[in-house]
Amino acid sequence: MESASILVTGANGFLGRHVSRCYARKGYSVLGIGHGEWTREEWESWGLSAWHRADVTLQTLQQHAGTPSVIVHCAGSGSVAYSIENPLGDFERTVVTTAHVLEYVRQYAHTCSIIYPSSASVYGAAESVPIREDCRAVPISQYGVHKLMAEQMITAYARQFGTSASIVRLFSVYGCGLRKQLLWDACCKFANHDSVFMGTGDEVRDWLHVEDASGLLLLSAEHASPECPIVNGGSGEGVTVREVLNHLGRRLFQGKLTPIFSGAQRTGDPSRYVADINGSRAWGWQPTCHWKVGVAEYASWWKSVCAL
Amino acid sequence: MESASILVTGANGFLGRHVSRCYARKGYSVLGIGHGEWTREEWESWGLSAWHRADVTLQTLQQHAGTPSVIVHCAGSGSVAYSIENPLGDFERTVVTTAHVLEYVRQYAHTCSIIYPSSASVYGAAESVPIREDCRAVPISQYGVHKLMAEQMITAYARQFGTSASIVRLFSVYGCGLRKQLLWDACCKFANHDSVFMGTGDEVRDWLHVEDASGLLLLSAEHASPECPIVNGGSGEGVTVREVLNHLGRRLFQGKLTPIFSGAQRTGDPSRYVADINGSRAWGWQPTCHWKVGVAEYASWWKSVCAL
Repeated sequence: MESASILVTGANGFLGRHVSRCYARKGYSVLGIGHGEWTREEWESWGLSAWHRADVTLQTLQQHAGTPSVIVHCAGSGSVAYSIENPLGDFERTVVTTAHVLEYVRQYAHTCSIIYPSSASVYGAAESVPIREDCRAVPISQYGVHKLMAEQMITAYARQFGTSASIVRLFSVYGCGLRKQLLWDACCKFANHDSVFMGTGDEVRDWLHVEDASGLLLLSAEHASPECPIVNGGSGEGVTVREVLNHLGRRLFQGKLTPIFSGAQRTGDPSRYVADINGSRAWGWQPTCHWKVGVAEYASWWKSVCAL
Repeated sequence: MESASILVTGANGFLGRHVSRCYARKGYSVLGIGHGEWTREEWESWGLSAWHRADVTLQTLQQHAGTPSVIVHCAGSGSVAYSIENPLGDFERTVVTTAHVLEYVRQYAHTCSIIYPSSASVYGAAESVPIREDCRAVPISQYGVHKLMAEQMITAYARQFGTSASIVRLFSVYGCGLRKQLLWDACCKFANHDSVFMGTGDEVRDWLHVEDASGLLLLSAEHASPECPIVNGGSGEGVTVREVLNHLGRRLFQGKLTPIFSGAQRTGDPSRYVADINGSRAWGWQPTCHWKVGVAEYASWWKSVCAL
C-alpha cells in the first residue's frame, strides 16, 4: 500500500522544512513546492520525496500536486519588514498563493485538508493577554493584514464549499536554522560587539520551538473540517525580549555583553504577545521545549554555523 | 488651467458609468480603465475624456493613469452568484485589482485619494438593523469576503503609508441601465409571465438610486484621509423584496402579475439590510430619490429598452 501523501508549500522555508521532516518521520510521502534553490541531497535530508521549484499557482498545483490528503500551506511572506517595503509582493506571496491553493482543493482535490500556519500578528495590539482566538483581530502590519486575509479566504471556502481546513496562529517560532528575526540578528550583532537593540526590551513574546510548532500543525490536520477550527500555537508563557537576549548573550559570550535598548518602538510591532493555548491543549497538544533550552540550543547552532 | 483629473476603474460598469458622468458634470477630466467594449461615442456620452480597455494592474496604471487627484475604484466583481461559481475570478477582480491600485498610489501618485465603493455584503448576517459601520463585519458570501479584504488592504495602506482614502459601503444600488440583479431579473420574468421568485419576499433591502450613490462617492473624496473613514451608502429605509416587486409589477403590467415566493432562502443572502446613514448624513449628504420613484423610473426604462 502506498503511503498517504502530503503537500507542503514553501517546503524550503524554515517552517516548511521542519513540517516536511515531521511528516516524513511519521511515514508520509512528502511533496514540496515553492521558491528557493536547494540540492536534491538537501531536500531529501529534510524528508521530501519530491521537490518542485515553482510559484504556488493553480496551474503548478495541477501539474505537480497530485491528490494529497493534506496540504500544509507554509508558502508566504515571513517578515513584517518585507511587508512594509514591498506590500504588493507580500500580498502576492501570502494572499494570492492561498487563493490558488484553495481553488486547487475546491476543483481538483476536494477530500484534501488544508492546514494553514497563520500568525499571532493577526491580533495586532491585543487588548489583553493571554490572547484568545476569539478576540477581535485588528492587525497592525501589512504582514498581519495579509495573514488575516488568507485566514478569511480559508474560512469562507470551508463554509461555502465544505473545504476541510484548520488554522494555527503561531506565535514567535524559532529554532536552529532560522536565519532571520530577533535571535539571528542578535547573534550577529553580539558577534560584532554591537549590543544596541531597537525597542524597549520590555516587549513580551511567546516563544515556540519549531519542532513544537510542527507537531501542532500535524495534529491540527486531524481536526481539520469545514468548521475550520482556529487555535493558537504558543507556549502560553510570556518572555520579554530583554530576558531572551540576556540569556542568549550569556550562552554566546558568557555574559560579557548585555543588550542595550534604544527605547524606540518599531513600526508594526505590538508590545505584548502571549498565547492562550487552551484550544490546542484541548487537542491533547502541549509544548515540550522550554524557551531557555531552545535558546541555548539556538546559540550553540549559531556558533557552529558561524564558526565563532 | 487644466481641470483636475479623476481616474475611474471599471468605468464601463453600471456604477462606474454614473460616477464618471457625475464627475464630468462637475468639470473634471475623467479617465476610465477597465474591461468591456464600448464605442468612443458611448464612453464620451458618459463623460469620459479617455478610455483604456485593460486589466487594472500596476503596469497598466503606470501606462495610462497619469497622476489623478482621485481614483474611484469601481472595478471588481459585481455579483454574489459569480463569486460562488468562480471564487478565484472574483478574488482577482475585487482584491487583486485593489492591491494594484493601492501600490500604484503608494509608488507613483502619493497625493491621490482612493475612493472605494464597498458593499453592505461585508456585514453578513447583521445582528440588528439599522446597521452601523462599526458593527462586526462577518460576511457570508465570497463576494462579501472579498469586498472586506479589499477594505482591509485600503485601511492598512492608509495607516501604514498615509494613503488618503475613504470607503462607502453601498447597499442595494439600482437605476436605469442596470441589466442584472433583482429588478432586471424581475422585469424579464414578469415579461415571460413567470412570477415565481426565490426567497420568502420578506427579505429587507435598502434601495439606493445610483445617482445618489454617485453623489455620495464624489462627496466622500472630500473626506478621504489616512484615517480612511467608512460610511454606509443607503437610504436608511428598509423595504421588503415583496413590496418592491409588487410596485414593479404594478408599474409594468398594471398589477396583473403578483409575485409569488418559493420560500427558499438563497445561499449567501442575508435577510435584513438597512443602513444606518448617520455617518454620510454628517457629511451633509442625503438620498434624494425615493425607492417608489426610482423603481417606477426603472420600469419605464426597462419597457423602453425591451420594447414591451
